[in-house]
Amino acid sequence: MFSRETLSKRMDHVQYAIRELFPVAERIEKAGGRIVKVNIGDPVPYFGTPKYILEALEKAVREGKTGYGRSPGEKPLLEAIARRYRRKYGFEVGPDNIFVTQGVSEAIQFLDACLLEEGRGCIMFSPYYPAYIPQLRIYSGEYYLSSCDEENGWAPGIDDLKRQVAKAKEDGVDLKYLHLINPCNPTGSVWKRRELEEVAGVARENDLLLVSDEIYDEIVFDGGFVSMAEVARDQPLAILNGLSKNWCATGLRIGWIVLSGKGEGVQRLHDALTRMGTVRLCPSMPAQWAGVEALDNVKAHKEFLTGLNAEIRRRSVYCWKRLNEIDGVSCQRAKGAFYLFPRVDLEKGGCRTDAEFVHKLLEKEKVWAVQGSGFGLGSHMRIVTLPAIDVLESACAGIERMMKAK
Amino acid sequence: MFSRETLSKRMDHVQYAIRELFPVAERIEKAGGRIVKVNIGDPVPYFGTPKYILEALEKAVREGKTGYGRSPGEKPLLEAIARRYRRKYGFEVGPDNIFVTQGVSEAIQFLDACLLEEGRGCIMFSPYYPAYIPQLRIYSGEYYLSSCDEENGWAPGIDDLKRQVAKAKEDGVDLKYLHLINPCNPTGSVWKRRELEEVAGVARENDLLLVSDEIYDEIVFDGGFVSMAEVARDQPLAILNGLSKNWCATGLRIGWIVLSGKGEGVQRLHDALTRMGTVRLCPSMPAQWAGVEALDNVKAHKEFLTGLNAEIRRRSVYCWKRLNEIDGVSCQRAKGAFYLFPRVDLEKGGCRTDAEFVHKLLEKEKVWAVQGSGFGLGSHMRIVTLPAIDVLESACAGIERMMKAK
Repeated sequence: MFSRETLSKRMDHVQYAIRELFPVAERIEKAGGRIVKVNIGDPVPYFGTPKYILEALEKAVREGKTGYGRSPGEKPLLEAIARRYRRKYGFEVGPDNIFVTQGVSEAIQFLDACLLEEGRGCIMFSPYYPAYIPQLRIYSGEYYLSSCDEENGWAPGIDDLKRQVAKAKEDGVDLKYLHLINPCNPTGSVWKRRELEEVAGVARENDLLLVSDEIYDEIVFDGGFVSMAEVARDQPLAILNGLSKNWCATGLRIGWIVLSGKGEGVQRLHDALTRMGTVRLCPSMPAQWAGVEALDNVKAHKEFLTGLNAEIRRRSVYCWKRLNEIDGVSCQRAKGAFYLFPRVDLEKGGCRTDAEFVHKLLEKEKVWAVQGSGFGLGSHMRIVTLPAIDVLESACAGIERMMKAK
Repeated sequence: MFSRETLSKRMDHVQYAIRELFPVAERIEKAGGRIVKVNIGDPVPYFGTPKYILEALEKAVREGKTGYGRSPGEKPLLEAIARRYRRKYGFEVGPDNIFVTQGVSEAIQFLDACLLEEGRGCIMFSPYYPAYIPQLRIYSGEYYLSSCDEENGWAPGIDDLKRQVAKAKEDGVDLKYLHLINPCNPTGSVWKRRELEEVAGVARENDLLLVSDEIYDEIVFDGGFVSMAEVARDQPLAILNGLSKNWCATGLRIGWIVLSGKGEGVQRLHDALTRMGTVRLCPSMPAQWAGVEALDNVKAHKEFLTGLNAEIRRRSVYCWKRLNEIDGVSCQRAKGAFYLFPRVDLEKGGCRTDAEFVHKLLEKEKVWAVQGSGFGLGSHMRIVTLPAIDVLESACAGIERMMKAK
């Protein structure tokens, strides 16, 4: 029966913190209010998709590349992705080990569908990107959160990681993968080679697939990004990336999975990803052809990225300093991506929860940030540092007034 | 552990018949073989996406509409979809009751995720579009197949429909929806108003959501298409459609769900679909803007469609006549879409199964069709009638030789 007990139990878990305040914001804007937005990690409204990519997309459209394609992705894009990993990380991967997905969202969905079910789970670090949780809950997976050391630039806590693996074993949960996002959304941290080696070691010792979301791998302020492709290519590894952030093309919905490592587990996952792909036919076709140019035109990309990174860095540093001037707020400096994840003294702010804090911040100060609890860590909030300095200043000023309002 | 029992049990069910012979075909083509393709229902290689839609897409790209958008879809597209249903079916639906999806594939995925789980299920008609089954199995749903009357133009068998509903009750399976595809893939049937009313009646009496996939609703040869929007708008109803077929734009991956009817079930599903949408952020943005023009430029669309339908009809009729000339093959005439679903005397063809038949047909005759069992009905195969007459003739000649080869 449709009208009684309509929804599946899994729907209890399908929430997405970043988009929860949309109805409140729509009401404010309808009433003529102007909102200072530091809530969505979309570089396109601030920097635009690079012209050379738009031109490639136009060309693909003009050429009528609008029919169905191969389920794992168009061969020229798979080859361009393979070239990128060879060039950037000295990582030899064949096009047949790459799967194009409708954004990293679908990459995660595929992995969870393939690997998780009741009694199975994964380990991830907290704070995490919020959509990971509903995705795995949709497939009845469990998750264990390993904490990061905020005072130490959000470094992974290897002892806690091992504790969480042990806890899952005690609970009888069969862990399938260990998930990290580096550079990190929401903290802006970039992990060091030694830290990655330790994390990869835990995955290897416990026979876990390593899932490394590296969607911000070129948005790094002071160089020195290390990919799991450099550290863990010989063990079961899935690297996630896409056009959204490095190439400023969020709305094209092009992501990918690079699958590496040997053994039957990797082979079985390869086969399963192939089958998942066929069920939804193919990703957007013209966008894939734009992707070929995005990845192969190294010169145009580098030029764009140099300017982008310099500007994002300037905004990030400004906002970081300004947040730390506010009484009751403390914030780690970001090393990459375009987020800051300040700790907020909620009592000073007159709120019981960070969800209440960001709700009030939006209603009273018209500043739209996202609650830290949405990323797995209360008493924090996420600030997107993409807007111009004056907008970031308005956001910080609003937060400052909130902290004094009690 | 990743390397042992890697895959979730649901992956046992994830297969997609239409794309199963891809590896065989790739091998043949690599060896220089030329394949006569009647396997993929993609009109784009044959007719191209209409120019006015490509131009709208180019314009959206030039304007840089490549950032994130609203999860349920961009408002102008939702409004254009609402206008279409008002214009075409006198059906008043608000843009807030429409959800844009990444193809109808994602529409089905969302509905299954929202409604199904172990112990729940749905009814669908056989033969069916193959991807429906892995989609619902991914979410642990059961399905009951209600047969159609082949000799009577594949009309729905209402008695069998009622029997299947009763059978599900006996099995203790909680049915949530009744699913039809009209015009039908793979049979090309178009159901009459009275038939639709009977089907809708069974849904209403048994408190089932009616899911009506109408992706081919404008590819109808002799007029007279009736939408469930005209028959069942006051009961829980989800109409599925998209740009792929009527607008010849399969590779843009734009579908939609129109949700209609009253009651708490519909409200809860509305809320759940909204949340499912947020988790994957948004559908392709420039494609959505192209969709606005696709739907609103009624004149250009009608011109394109008139030519398209005349040509598809001609090819369909040719192929239908030709198939019926082959000894051991019999075929119902199609009233819409671009498929024929002939019955094949397997013994005459020297094969035990239809899967074996299409495999041999590909290997020996280089003709690529899809086995009927992939659509839920053995001893048949699906022929796509989009190619030019000479290609259809080659396909039929290949089938004819197979039938004589024994």
